This record gives sequence, structure tokens and C-alpha cells, in this order.
Amino acid sequence: MGDRIRVGVVGAGGRMGKEVVKMVLQDDALELVAAVDHSAGEVDAGSLVGVETTGIIVTSQLEEALLSTKPDVIVDFTTPSSVMKNTVTAIQHGVRPVVGTTGLSTEEIDDIRTLCKDKGIGAIIAPNFSIGAFLMMQFAKQAAKYLPNVEIIEYHGDQKLDAPSGTAVKTAELISEVREERRQGNPNEEEKIEGARGGYYNGFRIHSVRLPGIFAQQEVIFGGHGESLKIRHDSYERAGYMPGVNLAVKKVMELHELVYGFEHLMD
Amino acid sequence: MGDRIRVGVVGAGGRMGKEVVKMVLQDDALELVAAVDHSAGEVDAGSLVGVETTGIIVTSQLEEALLSTKPDVIVDFTTPSSVMKNTVTAIQHGVRPVVGTTGLSTEEIDDIRTLCKDKGIGAIIAPNFSIGAFLMMQFAKQAAKYLPNVEIIEYHGDQKLDAPSGTAVKTAELISEVREERRQGNPNEEEKIEGARGGYYNGFRIHSVRLPGIFAQQEVIFGGHGESLKIRHDSYERAGYMPGVNLAVKKVMELHELVYGFEHLMD
Amino acid sequence: MGDRIRVGVVGAGGRMGKEVVKMVLQDDALELVAAVDHSAGEVDAGSLVGVETTGIIVTSQLEEALLSTKPDVIVDFTTPSSVMKNTVTAIQHGVRPVVGTTGLSTEEIDDIRTLCKDKGIGAIIAPNFSIGAFLMMQFAKQAAKYLPNVEIIEYHGDQKLDAPSGTAVKTAELISEVREERRQGNPNEEEKIEGARGGYYNGFRIHSVRLPGIFAQQEVIFGGHGESLKIRHDSYERAGYMPGVNLAVKKVMELHELVYGFEHLMD
Amino acid sequence: MGDRIRVGVVGAGGRMGKEVVKMVLQDDALELVAAVDHSAGEVDAGSLVGVETTGIIVTSQLEEALLSTKPDVIVDFTTPSSVMKNTVTAIQHGVRPVVGTTGLSTEEIDDIRTLCKDKGIGAIIAPNFSIGAFLMMQFAKQAAKYLPNVEIIEYHGDQKLDAPSGTAVKTAELISEVREERRQGNPNEEEKIEGARGGYYNGFRIHSVRLPGIFAQQEVIFGGHGESLKIRHDSYERAGYMPGVNLAVKKVMELHELVYGFEHLMD
Repeated sequence: MGDRIRVGVVGAGGRMGKEVVKMVLQDDALELVAAVDHSAGEVDAGSLVGVETTGIIVTSQLEEALLSTKPDVIVDFTTPSSVMKNTVTAIQHGVRPVVGTTGLSTEEIDDIRTLCKDKGIGAIIAPNFSIGAFLMMQFAKQAAKYLPNVEIIEYHGDQKLDAPSGTAVKTAELISEVREERRQGNPNEEEKIEGARGGYYNGFRIHSVRLPGIFAQQEVIFGGHGESLKIRHDSYERAGYMPGVNLAVKKVMELHELVYGFEHLMD
Repeated sequence: MGDRIRVGVVGAGGRMGKEVVKMVLQDDALELVAAVDHSAGEVDAGSLVGVETTGIIVTSQLEEALLSTKPDVIVDFTTPSSVMKNTVTAIQHGVRPVVGTTGLSTEEIDDIRTLCKDKGIGAIIAPNFSIGAFLMMQFAKQAAKYLPNVEIIEYHGDQKLDAPSGTAVKTAELISEVREERRQGNPNEEEKIEGARGGYYNGFRIHSVRLPGIFAQQEVIFGGHGESLKIRHDSYERAGYMPGVNLAVKKVMELHELVYGFEHLMD
Repeated sequence: MGDRIRVGVVGAGGRMGKEVVKMVLQDDALELVAAVDHSAGEVDAGSLVGVETTGIIVTSQLEEALLSTKPDVIVDFTTPSSVMKNTVTAIQHGVRPVVGTTGLSTEEIDDIRTLCKDKGIGAIIAPNFSIGAFLMMQFAKQAAKYLPNVEIIEYHGDQKLDAPSGTAVKTAELISEVREERRQGNPNEEEKIEGARGGYYNGFRIHSVRLPGIFAQQEVIFGGHGESLKIRHDSYERAGYMPGVNLAVKKVMELHELVYGFEHLMD
Repeated sequence: MGDRIRVGVVGAGGRMGKEVVKMVLQDDALELVAAVDHSAGEVDAGSLVGVETTGIIVTSQLEEALLSTKPDVIVDFTTPSSVMKNTVTAIQHGVRPVVGTTGLSTEEIDDIRTLCKDKGIGAIIAPNFSIGAFLMMQFAKQAAKYLPNVEIIEYHGDQKLDAPSGTAVKTAELISEVREERRQGNPNEEEKIEGARGGYYNGFRIHSVRLPGIFAQQEVIFGGHGESLKIRHDSYERAGYMPGVNLAVKKVMELHELVYGFEHLMD
């Protein structure tokens, strides 16, 4: 069993953290060696996520855990306020970080890049670990070259605070890289109800639907002469990100620098 | 052939009028006896719509046409500015009008109702002759009783002037009749791009997509606990309204009063 | 708290049973008084479902539990082999059963109906507790009267054994009640790959898609002249059935006979 | 006007041919110089397609038309039985053919390739001129590398004879090039209605829906862990192929050999 990858999960009691713990436990190529969480208490990591006990007791101290359990990789889905400190601590102890938390600034990411280079150690930071979402964005960018008339509709649960979603904005950015900027629609178009035409982004529109029951969906729709093309991605649950996280945990072992963005792992 | 319904088409050179002419020519139960159009010139009605010649020459004078050809029914898809006069003229000559033009005022409709009653003659006015669109609206109203979280997305060609579409607004009205008014979504929701959350209507949202290639589509989406329900209607072409117009031409023969709204013909 | 409805959950350790336990614990109008499961062991019902402890210890004996905890209602999502015995036991002890297990025979349902009448006690048996799925089926039946050209596509996870799904077959039955039987499609149609045109049911077709990641979805698509109408239902998770079960638990308190089918609770 | 491309349309009276005539007339960079059709009679090409007269009279003799009107390009959407002869005739007269007719054999295509090389003249043969359909196929192939669980659903009008469609089969071939062959679904899966699971192709399934009102649609659906990705293309009308034909007419002017397949024109 000496060649299994030793994994620590930071934020193990959070909604994503719990999924990561379960994913690690289910993969024979990975070994859960540490589970860190500030508020979960000293429970067994298995009990924490509703499966069999594991013998791994949740701890609130990351540094101690790194020293005593010597993980190869830590996976971090904590909050913007703690992720920078966690990541730096890990690298300084020679532990490769896989980070899914969003909100790191460009400066912080540059600092991590430098630190990785200095230590010769791999790290992965990705705001999204979904393979399908990644493909949707790539296809949207490719299609916009040939079919420049486009709108984006994204669907999330009704308690989401921000609109449009981060994925929709990222998709819009990718489209804008290849699409000549042009204001779509009739120049004399009139909104009888304000906002009906959606949010304006570089000449095209983004619409945000918020309904209970929906986890995360997005459609990118292209209109052409007598035809339309639609690319749709549905995320049904947090578990949907786990194959991507699993891939990242394995890929980071082969890296000696920071990779930013899931797309760079896929090819 | 004496029992075929004799039909006159007003606005025969318009986009909808041409479809009506073709529909009448294709149904053995109907006989085209007149085609009226102000700007088409004295051409054969068949040539006007791109089929074989019919022997019916297009005329610009409705009243003369009514006197000389004695239709049972006229179908009118002209403009808001001429439809009232045409309809009154028809009823006064004992000819039943089937009207698809939108824009008649409530007063005008009441006047037509009174005139029909006085003459004991049937008439049908309907802003929409699509069976599928009608069913979509009825289902949306029924579903909103049980699943009160709803959003509407409508799709039309990119040259359409108004947003949302008339059908979307009518659907929203029907939903509002049965749905308790309640503002959906997170009360602290924030639009990072103005308009992303769509147009606000009685607590829920309407989104208008405009893309080339699309004729007319609408989705009404309901979100519930762990589920969603979507009702979607696609109109692919003007011809899609013709079965409804055909039904109206036949039903109006049995009426002795005005019927307003296609829904009253269906059951 | 004396007027809360006292609920016992049978099969509390099953996948649906766990959801029922959580639903009961979350509703202040309901009180969990018993949790029965043959194989879960003597654990706390809260621990069993991964929430806080409740003080209710899971038991394997239904009859004892009924005697000692006197529930008003039991909810049963066990197996076809045990549900009949459980239901009869409950009624004989004056406890109203809400049954979600499928597979009871017509004779068994008739026996339960007689027993309920004799005891003057309410009971609900329903193969499906989803409000959205119920509406989809009702709308499909209504639409088929006007748009008789129809096909059904259902989507489930790739490990499902049977195709088409029970819901698809039930939808097809409902459509057949109102649709004149007629073989759709070109009479000379040819399958170049056998099965491409789907399963044949009373003149129309049913298609079963099986893919990982999907829980349960169904589309009923109607084609007309230049238009189409689609009714789509998505179930994202077992929790989606809980509002329906919750409604049934409350409605069964007002009943004095058996109600078979969720649709009879809705109006 | 000397630098407009001179275009002849062969099969000008067919459904696709009429669209080509209209497309050529609408583009100021193109000049209609000949319209050939065996059965249309000596009518004006404009009247034939329902627009203003053009002065170009339809002829039934291709070779004479080539000699007298000297087109740069001919566009051919005739039948499999005449397209080979037309194409050879054109090349021998130094006229570049753009061919949309399907059904040429591999040997015939090779003969055309040789003839083009000998004459140093460009030619384009493509079974499909839709940009959106092409993108759908490319994306499906790319996605299958990462998400190998896939099914195809295609939708056409109810009078179509063959199932699955040629586009669906071509999509399946492209997917098979990159997807490891593996039989999807539960190995013990059982069809209660024969054909429900669709047509089997190299381990995955193709479903063909046939409904009136629909022109041509296709969905390629990929299932992953907790997610799905859908690529959908809708063709609304024959006119939808015209931008692709237009592109081919312009590109063929720059070629000195045969290009087979629309995809080689796009990049």
C-alpha cells in the first residue's frame, strides 16, 4: 500500500469537503491520512460524512496534521479567508495543494506560483472541477467563431445571491475573445418590462434563472441562418465535481509548478 | 360542391394572408371566392402565393368583393388600422369574420359583440391561433397552482422589436390569476450585470432571447423540491397557425355571436 | 404539541426511508415516534440518516412499535414482499398507512380497501409522490386530444434494469385513453439499425435513454402543423418525492377509506 | 460588375435548387447566369422560385448552358443518377462544381479528384452544408474522449423513410473513432417493450423520433458523474444550408483540386 497517494482534506466538514472525504475513501489509489476542520469537533472522519468509521479523527490544526501525517497532497475547499494561509503552509511543508476555493487575488496566485517554483513543488488551483462545464466553455468559444449571434442562460437554486453566475461570466469572457464585438438584436428593440432582455455583456445577453430544485445548469445558444446550436451543461450535485478533483490529486503528483485552471489538466 | 364554405381572404398579400390563401386552397371543404389586398395589384391569387393559378383575381375593394362573391366567411390578418372597418363591413353584409389581427381595443371588441348580436351572426377574434401555444398557456396556469416558483423564457428572431413577447405576457397574466403573489428568489440577491435576472412580473421573472434563425419558442419552467417541470412550445413557421385558422373558419359557421379567444373553440 | 401528527417510518434505513425520516424531523407539524428497519440495528434514527440524534431508537418489530408508540400514520417504502403484511398490521391497530412501495397486486389493493372500509380508517397507496411527474402525465393526456402525434423519451441512470420506465408506460396508457389508435410515421419507414425507432406502444413510440449522472427525467413531445409542444419533468433526487409524501401524511388524517393514486389528493 | 462570381444552378426547380437560386439572387457578389432543370419548362428563374423575374430562362440542357453562359461555378443539388454526369461535364468545360447531392460512390469521387487534378480546377462535394451540424459533430467527437457515456437522439418529420438519419450515423462514427468500445448500461438490462433502448451502435444507442412539424434536430447527450452535457442542433428549414453553400461557392474559386467534406472549408 506504500504507493497510494496520501491525502489530507482541509475543510472536511464543509459541503464540498465531505464529498472530497468520501471520494478519497472510495478510491483504492488514494489514502485518507488527515481531515482538518475548525468547527467539526474531534469526530471520526467517516462518521462526519455518514459512512463507516475510518480511524482518522478530525483535527482543527492544519500544521500539526501535516507534521504528524505527512500527506502527499491536501485538498482545500475552505473559505477565501483561510485558503491563502493553508496553501502557503502546505507548500512550506512540501505538501502539494489542490485548491477549489474561489476568491484568491491575482497577487496571491502569483505569490503561490513563486513559492512553488522556489520549492520545486506542484500545486493546482481551479475555480471549477467539472469536466462537462469545461467542455461547454471550450465548445462555446469554438462555436462563436462561426456563429457570432449568441446568448447565455444559466439556472441555479433560488437562494443563490449573485447573478450572473461565475461560470456564465467566464463563458462570456471566452466567447468575447474570439467574437467580433457587435451589438446583437434590433437597434430599435424596446423592453416593455425592464430587464426582459437580460444582462448586456460585450454585445450579447446573459439571463439568470433562479428556481428551487435546480443545482446548476447552463445553456449557450447560437442562432444562425435557419438553424440554432445549443450547448447545455447540467450539474446535478456537488459529487459531480469529484472526478475532476480526483484527476487533480493524481496530476499534481507529477507537477513541479503551479497550474491554474482545470483546462490545463485536460489533454 | 354547394356545401363548401365560401371564404374570402383579406390582406391576402401579407405574410399571414398568403398562408391563409394556401390553406383554403388545400382544404376540399373550403372554397376560395375572394382575395382582397390593397397593394398586391390585379394578379391571380394562386400566383400571388406561388401555387397554380386559381381564376380568383386579387381586388383592392372589400365591399365590392363581398357583394359580387358572397363569401360565408372572411379571414382577416390585416393591420390594426384597417381591421375594425373590414370587420364591421363584413358583418353588415352578413359575412362572418375570423380575425387574427391584434390591437383591437376593448371598446371596439364590445362594439363588434353588439353588432353580431343584433345581426345574429357569428364572429371569431383571436390574437393567437396556435393549438400548442394555447395548451402551453393552459398547462402553465394549471401547474402554477401546485408549483408556484416559475420563470418564463421566450425566444424570437433577432429583429423582433418588443420584449417580452405578447404570448409571454399573456402567460404571465394567466399564471398570476392562480399564483399567490410572492417575490421569488433570495431577498438579498444582487445583479452584477444589470438585467441578468430578467423582467419582473408579479414576483417572478420573464427572459427574452433574440437570435437569428428562431421563429417563436417559449418555455415555462417550474421549480419544486428536488424537481422541475418545463412546458415548451416551438412555432416553426407561420403555417403553424393554419390548423387553428381552419378550425375557426368551420366553427364560426355554427356561431350566432362573437367568440373572443381561441381557447373557447377548443373543447 | 399534542396536535402534531405522530408518524412511524417503516423501512427507515432504506434510501427512501431515510429521506422520509429527515422530512418528518424537519416539519414542526409532524412528530417522529417510531422508526422500523430489519437490518439497521439499534441505532438512533437521527444518526441513521446523518443528522442530530433524536432519542428514537430504530427497532425491527413493527407491531411492538405500533403498540408502544401509537403513531397516527406509518409511511412505508419497504419491499413488495413485506409491504402487504405491514399495511394490514397497521390498519388492524388503527394506524393509517401511507404506502409508496410499488408491486401490490390488484387483489391486495382490493383487500386493503375492504379492510379500511371495515375499520373506517384512511389509507393512501401511491406508486409516485412527485407533483411534477403527476402534472406531466395529466398534461400529456390533455394535449393528446388535440395533438395526436406524440413520442415519449425517458432518461434514467445507466444501472436501471427495466426499459421503458414505469412512469413512461403509465404516461403512454393515459395518452392511449384519449388518443385514437393510429400508427404514426411513414408506413414505409425502414430501420437501418434495429430498434432506432424505439418501442412501439399503441401506434406511437417510447425511447429509453440510460446514462450515468441522470436520476429521472421524461419528455413527452407532440408534433403538429409547423409546431411542437414538449412537456418535460426532471427529478433530481429522492428528496423530490418528499413534499408529496408530506401532503399524503396530512391528507390521510382526514380520510376514512383507501385512496389509490396521488392524483386524487391534488385538487 | 465584372468581378462577380458567375453561378449556374443545376436542378433549379428542386426544393434545394430553389433555395440556391434565391440565395444567389440575394448576394451582390454572385450573379445568376444559368438555371438548369429537366422538368421545370421554359420559365423565368425568378418566377420559378416566387420572386421577381430575372431574365434568366430555365433550360433543360446543361452543356449548352455552360457554353452560352460561361459560369465560374455550378451548384448541383440534383439526384444521385444525374450528378456524376453533370459534374464531369462541368469540369471538362472548366466550370467548378459545388455538389450537395449525396450518393456518389468512393470510385466516382476518386474519378472526380483525378479529373480536377488533370484540369487544375477546384471542386467541392459535401453531403451537408450546415455550419451548426458540423460544429455539433466536432464537439461530440471531442466530448467523447472525456465523457465516454453517450446516446444520440435525432428528430425528423414523420414522413422520413430511414432511421437513424445520415447525420446521426455520421456522428456515431466520429464518436467511435475516439471512444473506447464498451457496451454501456446495465448488463442485465431488459426491454419490456422491444426497441425501447434504441438502435445499438458500437456500444451506445441511437434514438430516432419522427413527428410532424419538425424539420431536423439532433441531440448528443453525455452522462458523467453527477453531470450531463448536451449538444443540440436544430435545422428549421432548407434555407439553413445556404450560408454554407454560399461559402462553398466563394471558396471553390480559390481551389485547384477537389475538396470533399464541408469541414475542410472551415478554419
